[in-house]
Amino acid sequence: MAGNSFGTLFRFTTWGESHGPAIGVVVDGCPSLLSLTEADIQPWLDKRRPGQSRYTTQRQEPDQVKILSGVFEGQTTGTPVSLMIENTDQRSKDYSEIAAKFRPGHADYTYWKKYGIRDYRGGGRSSARETACRVAAGAVARKVLGNGVTVRGALVQIGPHKVDRSRWDWAEVDNNPFFCPDPQAAAEWADYLDGIRKSGSSIGAVVEVVASGLPAGLGDPLYDKLDGDLARAMMTINAVKGVEIGNGFEAATLTGEQNADEMRAGPDSEPEFRSNLAGGILGGISTGQDIVVRFAVKPTSSILTPRQTVDLQGKDTDILTKGRHDPCVGIRAVPVGEAMMACVLADHLLRHRAYARG
Amino acid sequence: MAGNSFGTLFRFTTWGESHGPAIGVVVDGCPSLLSLTEADIQPWLDKRRPGQSRYTTQRQEPDQVKILSGVFEGQTTGTPVSLMIENTDQRSKDYSEIAAKFRPGHADYTYWKKYGIRDYRGGGRSSARETACRVAAGAVARKVLGNGVTVRGALVQIGPHKVDRSRWDWAEVDNNPFFCPDPQAAAEWADYLDGIRKSGSSIGAVVEVVASGLPAGLGDPLYDKLDGDLARAMMTINAVKGVEIGNGFEAATLTGEQNADEMRAGPDSEPEFRSNLAGGILGGISTGQDIVVRFAVKPTSSILTPRQTVDLQGKDTDILTKGRHDPCVGIRAVPVGEAMMACVLADHLLRHRAYARG
Amino acid sequence: MAGNSFGTLFRFTTWGESHGPAIGVVVDGCPSLLSLTEADIQPWLDKRRPGQSRYTTQRQEPDQVKILSGVFEGQTTGTPVSLMIENTDQRSKDYSEIAAKFRPGHADYTYWKKYGIRDYRGGGRSSARETACRVAAGAVARKVLGNGVTVRGALVQIGPHKVDRSRWDWAEVDNNPFFCPDPQAAAEWADYLDGIRKSGSSIGAVVEVVASGLPAGLGDPLYDKLDGDLARAMMTINAVKGVEIGNGFEAATLTGEQNADEMRAGPDSEPEFRSNLAGGILGGISTGQDIVVRFAVKPTSSILTPRQTVDLQGKDTDILTKGRHDPCVGIRAVPVGEAMMACVLADHLLRHRAYARG
Amino acid sequence: MAGNSFGTLFRFTTWGESHGPAIGVVVDGCPSLLSLTEADIQPWLDKRRPGQSRYTTQRQEPDQVKILSGVFEGQTTGTPVSLMIENTDQRSKDYSEIAAKFRPGHADYTYWKKYGIRDYRGGGRSSARETACRVAAGAVARKVLGNGVTVRGALVQIGPHKVDRSRWDWAEVDNNPFFCPDPQAAAEWADYLDGIRKSGSSIGAVVEVVASGLPAGLGDPLYDKLDGDLARAMMTINAVKGVEIGNGFEAATLTGEQNADEMRAGPDSEPEFRSNLAGGILGGISTGQDIVVRFAVKPTSSILTPRQTVDLQGKDTDILTKGRHDPCVGIRAVPVGEAMMACVLADHLLRHRAYARG
Repeated sequence: MAGNSFGTLFRFTTWGESHGPAIGVVVDGCPSLLSLTEADIQPWLDKRRPGQSRYTTQRQEPDQVKILSGVFEGQTTGTPVSLMIENTDQRSKDYSEIAAKFRPGHADYTYWKKYGIRDYRGGGRSSARETACRVAAGAVARKVLGNGVTVRGALVQIGPHKVDRSRWDWAEVDNNPFFCPDPQAAAEWADYLDGIRKSGSSIGAVVEVVASGLPAGLGDPLYDKLDGDLARAMMTINAVKGVEIGNGFEAATLTGEQNADEMRAGPDSEPEFRSNLAGGILGGISTGQDIVVRFAVKPTSSILTPRQTVDLQGKDTDILTKGRHDPCVGIRAVPVGEAMMACVLADHLLRHRAYARG
Repeated sequence: MAGNSFGTLFRFTTWGESHGPAIGVVVDGCPSLLSLTEADIQPWLDKRRPGQSRYTTQRQEPDQVKILSGVFEGQTTGTPVSLMIENTDQRSKDYSEIAAKFRPGHADYTYWKKYGIRDYRGGGRSSARETACRVAAGAVARKVLGNGVTVRGALVQIGPHKVDRSRWDWAEVDNNPFFCPDPQAAAEWADYLDGIRKSGSSIGAVVEVVASGLPAGLGDPLYDKLDGDLARAMMTINAVKGVEIGNGFEAATLTGEQNADEMRAGPDSEPEFRSNLAGGILGGISTGQDIVVRFAVKPTSSILTPRQTVDLQGKDTDILTKGRHDPCVGIRAVPVGEAMMACVLADHLLRHRAYARG
Repeated sequence: MAGNSFGTLFRFTTWGESHGPAIGVVVDGCPSLLSLTEADIQPWLDKRRPGQSRYTTQRQEPDQVKILSGVFEGQTTGTPVSLMIENTDQRSKDYSEIAAKFRPGHADYTYWKKYGIRDYRGGGRSSARETACRVAAGAVARKVLGNGVTVRGALVQIGPHKVDRSRWDWAEVDNNPFFCPDPQAAAEWADYLDGIRKSGSSIGAVVEVVASGLPAGLGDPLYDKLDGDLARAMMTINAVKGVEIGNGFEAATLTGEQNADEMRAGPDSEPEFRSNLAGGILGGISTGQDIVVRFAVKPTSSILTPRQTVDLQGKDTDILTKGRHDPCVGIRAVPVGEAMMACVLADHLLRHRAYARG
Repeated sequence: MAGNSFGTLFRFTTWGESHGPAIGVVVDGCPSLLSLTEADIQPWLDKRRPGQSRYTTQRQEPDQVKILSGVFEGQTTGTPVSLMIENTDQRSKDYSEIAAKFRPGHADYTYWKKYGIRDYRGGGRSSARETACRVAAGAVARKVLGNGVTVRGALVQIGPHKVDRSRWDWAEVDNNPFFCPDPQAAAEWADYLDGIRKSGSSIGAVVEVVASGLPAGLGDPLYDKLDGDLARAMMTINAVKGVEIGNGFEAATLTGEQNADEMRAGPDSEPEFRSNLAGGILGGISTGQDIVVRFAVKPTSSILTPRQTVDLQGKDTDILTKGRHDPCVGIRAVPVGEAMMACVLADHLLRHRAYARG
């Protein structure tokens, strides 16, 4: 209700600014008796952590997570899991320019209009740094989902350059700095993105997240539909401007015949779908197939080319944003998208148990 | 939490099945002292009502709304506004086939897996008929928004055929059966859709909804961002598979320079944006510009060509769906999308007041 | 959030005014495959219905409930259960006096201050008539709880006259018009209340509600504790001014030794409590013992003796309230208290399932 | 929904166990531009802090609060205010006995049944230590309420000994270790409680909290009534077993004539109430009078006299609880009750603004 919580039964609340002492997340509604240590969470944070290649911001922070509550002798107790990450690389740079001007594409102007005050240092609350908290919550959500469920993401497009789906190999995702499942595309992207980076520019991207191993029946029509909650989840990630389920906008161009996911009897008399254009969701409820979500990330708004803007006094001025920035913020959105999907699914898995028959 | 409510401070709950005695919506959180009569709501229902052209289902119902509570002497009292629409055209047709088989693309299979029971008559709860309740709630939301705010929608694509935005004329939307703002496209669509209809097929579409006249500052980061709530709102509409804000997926293909909405000082020293690629939302908060949302609607799953499926016993079978259907369900999604946007905005307007300074 | 809903997973929303066309409740989150017909609900409404003895208001209405949705072939479908009760005895009396003056003890003044408008006919939304909707929701909640759970209430005090707990007999509750478990007290109350009634006065009362057959483990500390939710539930009933769990306020007078519910090993090695001063709740979680709640109901504010008040213009005046009234509104609060407890328990039972281990 | 949050628009979430590294609270929905520093919060924590007299537990901790987010240059920014208090006095005592046995009156058994695991050190999550977080949140809530609103509490009964209300003096509350408004009672209580303390026993108490300076109109009928939310708020405090509004249970003994708060025209033509038996709430909405809540606190369950219980294996045993304990835990409940009332009122004040007319 107050804006900084997500989920119902599996619910997390994040806090913290880019340049405050720390950021954190409280995960409430995590069932008891799940094994959980910092070592379960840290790898996911490391995956999101900046500064690991020349294609992400050079901010250098260990993003070391601490469990402050909710775990006893290595197991969750059912009480809130409080996770904290200290901010260690808040450079004491000169913020006078971004304090005085609104950076186009950033939340500077809207925070100013809404709140009448903003912590302009590094973007404050609107910084992508907050997404580390989502990733930490997502690591806990994965524990709720259990080992039978896989949630994994990939970058499928940078600027105009898409992956070739015939070359899709999940194992390749960890072999390049783009989380790209197509090794040939990854090689081409490296050159392309070097050009973007060297010119001080930035570029948009598309992320795809796929969850496997979930039962049919997740999702609560009509307003807590699984796809509705996934759409909200992804759209709240910084810089996201569009969300699709399954074939998404392509569905608008198809006939009913083309778009039908036909069914056949499977080996155990459970039906099997012959395709998955629906992305694993019908009527807002999971079908048991892979759940497929895609989202578009706009280019980083911080670029070296000056842009027209106004200052706090309403006067015309220009601004260019120096410093550490991601040439393609979509790359680091991959683990964030995975985390958000894991949280949505964990929430709906608990809800499903609540209403389940006999 | 239980699935059939939407919103926080302006919150509605819908109920009812396609072939039950009635459907309805309870709007809770409507401020007092707004003038409201059935005549304020009925025109929006009439706009959504099927059977008005050969391009929508021939189900014939007056969709007459009754106000059962919350209004006294023509004004809202601040108590729940209960609205009911009786179902009058529930033909007693033979449902034995759809009772026994899962229609591909419909929610038959997932409702069955989730609930173990389903009211298969006309789709039951998953019928598009429920969207009449959204439209009724949206009419109340428009009262909350006031006359200074406009929320209007248009069909911008049918199948592969898009409108030409250089010919966009809002006044044309009511001049054709497609809510199409481009009269030339509307004429072409008529032929195209006649072909679809006569072949017993169906086709997808894209709807665009635009809100004007809202102040900057609406939206509650980070998880109740305005765009997140809009994405959820649209994705919960029947058959929607994708949602975009502003330039949406196109943002993925742009550079930071191209995507920046630059600002200049306006006449009253308030900044003016030189473009609106962001769709009126930055950092999850409204900028004061038009709020622009688009969503993709898949083709109606009910078609006359048989599709492979299984029956309740898990045996292979085929199904074709006779009866009254929309060749392009996206058309009637236009007033529904408008209604959902009005509801999201009314909710955030109330929230904005709660937190507003001074 | 908007005020007219109660519960989280088992959640109901009520609507309607005393003198509108109908009142109703939408129960959302009712699991599927429960048998439910109007005949399951009607007896509970009949129990609450006024006009059944000279000790309750003489308003005569059948309070006939209709199921409008959520049930298919006698079973719940998991979709919202919409229940409606038409108002049939709205006498077209002269409301000019209560329209112009604030009745002391009633909500007239506060509704006026809050909303700037009020439906003064019969109390409008603040009428005890709304509690019929709670009772209807409670009947559905009992289905969720199942046959193994009993929720029953009794009147334990009228004015200064308490029952003698040594004579407590649940079977007596239905043998007198007071829901009194002590037949001797009931006889005495009849005389006492006749005096109150004939003098046009009214009197307060205390209701006790007891639930049996629930497992240990219900309740979600720290803020959704079972006792916290029960306290809220009861305090929202019209005219309630106090709520106790177990020994309640008496606990304030006891030492730790006196107040301890000691435990001994039971037959199946599950512990047994040697007393139940805690009322079945420790740390906000059910112990498996009976859950015991008591609440105080103030005297009906409508009395025949004139009371000082002011009118809408702020001028001094007097008012006396003619018409049909309950000399002891606490009597009819018994089935309402039962219903609210059933709803709280059904909600927590579903929540319990969501988080349950293994 | 998940249990550890309270409030809607002004919403806080607490985390932490008695013997973990820290406890904390995230306050979400605090409006921007309120001045806030640690010095605004610390005095309220100091008031609740144990070890300040021989009548409270001798646990010695500074309870030093740190603001981790949500404040920039001394003002709130509208983003979550994260507050943390490190645990510094977790003695490494031997917990083997309370790990193996259920202490009567404590939450040991119910946490075990619910979660299958419990952090038994110092009570873990069910420790009264958590109430420090409520007090911290309450300090922020007071900022939202502003200087015109006063929320203050007092101990009005210890065991059978009540204050004499004719001697009530708010200024005395800070002059004795009991928060007692009656100096003579305070002197008597000192002797009485010394006896309780020396015998290793404990005693219950009653706390009264009064809020002044609030407008009429707060509260959202029918289920978010102000009194309903207050009842829930107080009942969730450790060891609370009963809650009253205004004259509370006494109302059950009164006639309608006695219980009416009559009204007269006030100086500015606003009505004035001639009494406040209703405790400032009618129909769930504030009247503008003082809001008066009382709650009963049971005696501390930890006592030196052995009590019968069972162990984890279900065997009969005895337990006595050595160590640091409050002979009357009701004393320290006074600042906690104040804090909870402040939070409820801040939440409803924001809600009121949302729905306010014109």
